[in-house]
Amino acid sequence: MSEQLPSNSPTPEPLRVSTASAEFPRSHKIHTRVRHGARELLVPARRIHLDGPPGHLDLYDTSGPEGCSPESGLPALRQEWIQERLARGEQNLSQMHFARRGLVTEEMAFAAAREGVPAEFVRAEIAAGRAILPANIRHPELEPMVIGRNFKVKINANIGNSAVASSIAEEVQKLRWSILWGADTVMDLSTGRQIHETREWILRNSPVPIGTVPIYQALEKVKGRIEKLDIEVFLDTLAEQAEQGVDYFTIHAGVLLRYVPLTAQRITGIVSRGGSILAKWCLAHHRENFLYEHFERICELMKRYDVSFSLGDGLRPGCTADANDAAQFGELETLGELTQIAWKHDVQVMIEGPGHVPLHLIRENMDRQLATCHGAPFYTLGPLVTDIAPGYDHITSGIGAALIGSYGCAMLCYVTPKEHLGLPNKEDVKQGVIAYKIAAHAADLAKGLKGARDRDDALSRARFEFRWEDQFNLGLDPVTARAYHDATLPQDGAKTAHFCSMCGPQFCSMKITEDVRKFAAQEQLSPEAALAAGLAAKGAEFTAAGGELYR
Amino acid sequence: MSEQLPSNSPTPEPLRVSTASAEFPRSHKIHTRVRHGARELLVPARRIHLDGPPGHLDLYDTSGPEGCSPESGLPALRQEWIQERLARGEQNLSQMHFARRGLVTEEMAFAAAREGVPAEFVRAEIAAGRAILPANIRHPELEPMVIGRNFKVKINANIGNSAVASSIAEEVQKLRWSILWGADTVMDLSTGRQIHETREWILRNSPVPIGTVPIYQALEKVKGRIEKLDIEVFLDTLAEQAEQGVDYFTIHAGVLLRYVPLTAQRITGIVSRGGSILAKWCLAHHRENFLYEHFERICELMKRYDVSFSLGDGLRPGCTADANDAAQFGELETLGELTQIAWKHDVQVMIEGPGHVPLHLIRENMDRQLATCHGAPFYTLGPLVTDIAPGYDHITSGIGAALIGSYGCAMLCYVTPKEHLGLPNKEDVKQGVIAYKIAAHAADLAKGLKGARDRDDALSRARFEFRWEDQFNLGLDPVTARAYHDATLPQDGAKTAHFCSMCGPQFCSMKITEDVRKFAAQEQLSPEAALAAGLAAKGAEFTAAGGELYR
Repeated sequence: MSEQLPSNSPTPEPLRVSTASAEFPRSHKIHTRVRHGARELLVPARRIHLDGPPGHLDLYDTSGPEGCSPESGLPALRQEWIQERLARGEQNLSQMHFARRGLVTEEMAFAAAREGVPAEFVRAEIAAGRAILPANIRHPELEPMVIGRNFKVKINANIGNSAVASSIAEEVQKLRWSILWGADTVMDLSTGRQIHETREWILRNSPVPIGTVPIYQALEKVKGRIEKLDIEVFLDTLAEQAEQGVDYFTIHAGVLLRYVPLTAQRITGIVSRGGSILAKWCLAHHRENFLYEHFERICELMKRYDVSFSLGDGLRPGCTADANDAAQFGELETLGELTQIAWKHDVQVMIEGPGHVPLHLIRENMDRQLATCHGAPFYTLGPLVTDIAPGYDHITSGIGAALIGSYGCAMLCYVTPKEHLGLPNKEDVKQGVIAYKIAAHAADLAKGLKGARDRDDALSRARFEFRWEDQFNLGLDPVTARAYHDATLPQDGAKTAHFCSMCGPQFCSMKITEDVRKFAAQEQLSPEAALAAGLAAKGAEFTAAGGELYR
Repeated sequence: MSEQLPSNSPTPEPLRVSTASAEFPRSHKIHTRVRHGARELLVPARRIHLDGPPGHLDLYDTSGPEGCSPESGLPALRQEWIQERLARGEQNLSQMHFARRGLVTEEMAFAAAREGVPAEFVRAEIAAGRAILPANIRHPELEPMVIGRNFKVKINANIGNSAVASSIAEEVQKLRWSILWGADTVMDLSTGRQIHETREWILRNSPVPIGTVPIYQALEKVKGRIEKLDIEVFLDTLAEQAEQGVDYFTIHAGVLLRYVPLTAQRITGIVSRGGSILAKWCLAHHRENFLYEHFERICELMKRYDVSFSLGDGLRPGCTADANDAAQFGELETLGELTQIAWKHDVQVMIEGPGHVPLHLIRENMDRQLATCHGAPFYTLGPLVTDIAPGYDHITSGIGAALIGSYGCAMLCYVTPKEHLGLPNKEDVKQGVIAYKIAAHAADLAKGLKGARDRDDALSRARFEFRWEDQFNLGLDPVTARAYHDATLPQDGAKTAHFCSMCGPQFCSMKITEDVRKFAAQEQLSPEAALAAGLAAKGAEFTAAGGELYR
């Protein structure tokens, strides 16, 4: 089957077509066959069927296998690949380890096909530390993806119950909901009861990498008494979560004792939960952060499972006034130092970033991160560019996220409208993911990524040609777009009408432009010709035609 | 009364306190007395009363006088000022004309007080053409404001009925609603029946400058037959609207015949309604745009009323693929030429800009506009940074608006979630205005405008100190913020609780930080001290205290 296909080269031939969800009308999941050695990989995409050219458009798809019940979980896509490596007796299972040995893994080939780049490019980026492919060997359900500034900008959605609210079933629903709308990774930030069980359900149902902040569970293990934390309870926690299949850990190893006093003059102090826990531990013991001191032991554990580091920015600013201060950039220096230690173990690393940063200070964050952390991928929360809009922080942060993405930030952690106020519900998750799909895509356009414009251009063409259905379906949220249209012009006829419902038929610029363009194109007008070629003679002719065209 | 006050210097003493609307709890309108020659000006602001320091915060306020019925309209604040000038026999009533003669008008003093700058600075900016103060002498209800890159970034909201939908009452409601949320100017884009009457109601009820696109009504006057348009019908329309009190006119005088063919290869051609009308006229007659040819006659009319030009970007890109092309920048050159002609007549000018522009091409728009148009204020629609999100274009465009605002764009024309899909309803107007208040404020922060940070910092302090009510009330939309909070933690006690509803009491970083900070502050720790001063001895002490603090 498909022996003629070159290795790692995607083909548009769909293998399996099934009906997509009600949220994306006229969309179907397809799988592209990609040869990888003796194996054939089935790489997913979402195909939008169009009335106009080019007939369809295929999109990067994060939503995972369809029709699986939460109880049975997803199929173990990577099981054989991983078994083979374990059978070979590999001790360091990290993708970086293989990449540095020159091996293109199935995961790299899979992620490369999704990105539309050669697998060798993915390998080289991982080997250089410029990208990570988070893929715990205990998370075989994963559809591999890659995070790095030379790939599409990714977005993360946070879910997780807390002591205050929400259940396991709700969290699995939020997982599925967030990947349906396009979340590339999901962090489970649960802190309440049933933390282990919640995570198990999430992992067995997740086709995207799952991240956690293990210090939360470690703190539960010591009954909330921060000063009782130590490296042993932390490593126990890591082992437990790594065994379950968590793909990346946020670890706040850069919160050093000497940085804590630098936060004393801030307006909002330390706003990272993990950061504040470690800061308090440091002060309580007046010793250096145990995560920093025992960092190599952590690396030893991570490489056995290929868990990636997401080095936490425990001292990120919690308001625009605190942005880019000595505490934040001090920690960043330490994260750079830790990156090199992790890389010594071939453990994959990304670096977390802020937070709240006014527009003019965003660039410095990206520049410093690249310089200090040796090119490791950056993963920021927003940043929020103002503090004055509680209830709208998906927008205040989407602005900063788009900008830092365009500067090279590899992944953007979403913020929902409930940020600072409460726990996001399903609708908040959707609003957060969509705002961040906008930010990430805007960044992809700005970076000039190959193919990034295709969807914009297809939608713009549909818009110009009054193909309303195509315009809806090419959008991030077709059902909402259609509902907004129908609120003004509910009649079915209005969806084939050659005018825009905003302006009405008499004032539709696109309608008029059609006339203008037909004339210009028909005459093959150049700018000079328009002035020079005795066009006055054509005037009467156009008026005769135009009078008819414009009702 | 207040004779001791220096001329043009605002004082915080409130003159009149009345209850503000349900949308802004614990807010009241105040008026500050400002001396201007023999006159005393009453300059409005909104005062938010706070539980914490500094007790209150005063904000720039656009919402206008309270308690006036739509039928009676607003009080004629400027009537005396204008009468005096007319009695003096002034022929050119433009603020630029006075500014260039060295006169500080009441309008300049009023606007300066709102901005918190000296009136002389406003005069100088207007004289230089870097700012405009749109204030038709037939719009005495106006509360004067200034638009320029050295002032707060302003936002415009579009309203207006069309052939398709909406009534006069709805439009007046939309006006009031949009200024309640913070719109600085409003454009009436009505195109349907009752265009004159709708505008009359809007003007008599508007404390903010009203802009229009007169070509729409001119086209109605010739029954929609574009080729029948000429300068006479256009000047008639201008005179009619100027008499009513319109403060600025969008005039597409830069759509030259030679630029039209440059749009032929675009994906979306010409998307400006006015631009497409003029383009069609040019082609129909094979003559140059009559607005361009008769521009000085237009200036003559404008200066008699002090109507400002908003030189329309009829060839702005309608999709990101068409951004920054020869047609767009060709027109911009012509707008620069027209700016100088207008300035010869002391007529105020701002320049309209795009539209749809990917992030990396935004800066060029601002740089070129400044260079080409001699520093006249820029007024852009968005720009939208991607085309793929119909239904969310307040966000796609808010991103671009924030960025171009930070580069120096003086006013941002809002986009609602209904853009490209239908006519905005009340909720859409609110969503559009709030997204643009965010963008404008983010730009003000980035520009480092004096006082711009005050609201952010007050809100951040309230957040850190768990003053939930202050946090809600300092936000752009207090009622929504409170509702989001209450969705997770509805109990009244939760609004005085010292933890964040997102994380729950055990994991609240701000709660922990309070402990950390108290300790650090108490010890007056410097970074060096933290390491050097034998802090180990303090450890046990802190643990004893901390163990109690963290329940």
